[in-house]
Amino acid sequence: VAVFTPVTEEEVSALLKDYSVGALKELRAIESGIENTNYFVTTSEGEFVLTLFEVLQREELPFYLNLMAHLASHGIACPRPIASLENEYLAALKGKPASLVSRLQGHSVIAPTAHQCARVGKLLANMHLAARSYTAVMENPRGPVWWHFAYERVGPYLAADERDLLQNELRFQRAHRELALPRAVVHADLFRDNVLFNGEDIGGVLDFYFAGNDALLFDIAVAVNDWCLVPAHEDEAKRTAALVGAYDEVRPVSAEERQAWPVMLRSGALRFWLSRLYDYHLPRPGHLLKPHDPNHFKNVLEQRRSAPPRWPD
Amino acid sequence: VAVFTPVTEEEVSALLKDYSVGALKELRAIESGIENTNYFVTTSEGEFVLTLFEVLQREELPFYLNLMAHLASHGIACPRPIASLENEYLAALKGKPASLVSRLQGHSVIAPTAHQCARVGKLLANMHLAARSYTAVMENPRGPVWWHFAYERVGPYLAADERDLLQNELRFQRAHRELALPRAVVHADLFRDNVLFNGEDIGGVLDFYFAGNDALLFDIAVAVNDWCLVPAHEDEAKRTAALVGAYDEVRPVSAEERQAWPVMLRSGALRFWLSRLYDYHLPRPGHLLKPHDPNHFKNVLEQRRSAPPRWPD
Repeated sequence: VAVFTPVTEEEVSALLKDYSVGALKELRAIESGIENTNYFVTTSEGEFVLTLFEVLQREELPFYLNLMAHLASHGIACPRPIASLENEYLAALKGKPASLVSRLQGHSVIAPTAHQCARVGKLLANMHLAARSYTAVMENPRGPVWWHFAYERVGPYLAADERDLLQNELRFQRAHRELALPRAVVHADLFRDNVLFNGEDIGGVLDFYFAGNDALLFDIAVAVNDWCLVPAHEDEAKRTAALVGAYDEVRPVSAEERQAWPVMLRSGALRFWLSRLYDYHLPRPGHLLKPHDPNHFKNVLEQRRSAPPRWPD
Repeated sequence: VAVFTPVTEEEVSALLKDYSVGALKELRAIESGIENTNYFVTTSEGEFVLTLFEVLQREELPFYLNLMAHLASHGIACPRPIASLENEYLAALKGKPASLVSRLQGHSVIAPTAHQCARVGKLLANMHLAARSYTAVMENPRGPVWWHFAYERVGPYLAADERDLLQNELRFQRAHRELALPRAVVHADLFRDNVLFNGEDIGGVLDFYFAGNDALLFDIAVAVNDWCLVPAHEDEAKRTAALVGAYDEVRPVSAEERQAWPVMLRSGALRFWLSRLYDYHLPRPGHLLKPHDPNHFKNVLEQRRSAPPRWPD
């Protein structure tokens, strides 16, 4: 269900003539995509991933492709866009914008260990250090402006108590979400399925298509809300301390950021509750994927509200 | 003998603070360097090579580092320079220019198979396709201008028959080396020790510090003179046909290039005979490495003169 635009070997072979990556040896659909069409492309010169962009528009893509190239050139293990013979990262196939990127090795982890959480914390901090010299700017497209837009659209579908909770949280965030924290382009979607591991070593970080400028702390909060609350909240404190402690070793977190931590964890939960409500109640026409259960992030938000965690010391 | 400037873990750890590659986990000297000091650097985020440049000057290095970045961004498996937090590929350590690059996996091959020669041919052709969009220009520093300089310096050390052979070949090249062939920045030193293999797959291509603008055909000739004449000329024709045929599939070679092939094979032999004579008779002060035997390339040149090979069909 996750290949939205099928492509043939002939079509990919023709595309590859515009690159210096050799001839096609193998083409294999990646079934796990949720927004784009992705294929593994193996050539005489290496292994790549071909993406056909189904939602993002052509003019939006250079921000992301240049970001990935920037991070990779700073040693971050992420997909590197491959330039064509015309020196372009962006191509077209079947009427869709397309790009070829290097393929990373590894598997995502469903039940991460504390050690793996620490590795993610280090990776995230190094990614933030590297992102600070990226000069293009785009506000987090799923930031506060979007929350209010999404709330207005999904509100009519919700029970009164859910609407109240959202409204209350939006008001709280407007009053308390600190704007003066250190900022840069952040990944903003660093869930377990976007990090590949080879055993205990990081294989790389994927899927930068929700990246945008926001507080670095927001990125940590999004990651902690996913990496450290699974499964069944077991060892949450240990995993959180591991991720956050490893991060802090690479990029020391300021007193202001520590203080903002409980608010930011809530804002991370709010953002994903809203987007999942939106995808659930207002699915894209023709979009066949079963949406995520929105309730998970409602629960996370309620947990973050009722027991505000302090930054671990 | 091949670590000219030893560095300590403390010094490398301090340097790494200027990067987003994580903290030092392991530092290991690479003993096989012949011009520069090289270390394997393993950090929490990956494996890298640190090079301290012993001969090239700081202002000469951007040409090479940007070339490697350009080729890597076009999908060529070569070391990728890692940018610092200040967005610089070039650093300094122990008073030497230094750079950190990604580490490639694999081993060089002493007795390549015809299949491995074909892989090198494809790699070389793809490298040439990618190099054509590299905009910086620097004449091959070991091209015809340098041959005449080197001949004047080493001439006095040579026996009369060697001097005659050199003089004769220089005259021949001046008259016949075709200047109108397709050109770009070429590797110009694609010997067996500069290509890593993982079994039959290419791991990558190393050591771009002799790269410069020259005929693409010169690059092929240098590679064939090394990859296809070993060991003891056995199967030379088969290996040459494999390398050259695979190259031609990726970048079709013109009629003019085919015609220039015998001359270019001689020019590839001449270039390395001269540089080995130079290093033998005029070693750099304090340079401890045993120079290569110059006679090997004298023999190659004589062989190329007495039995001029045609481009295989």
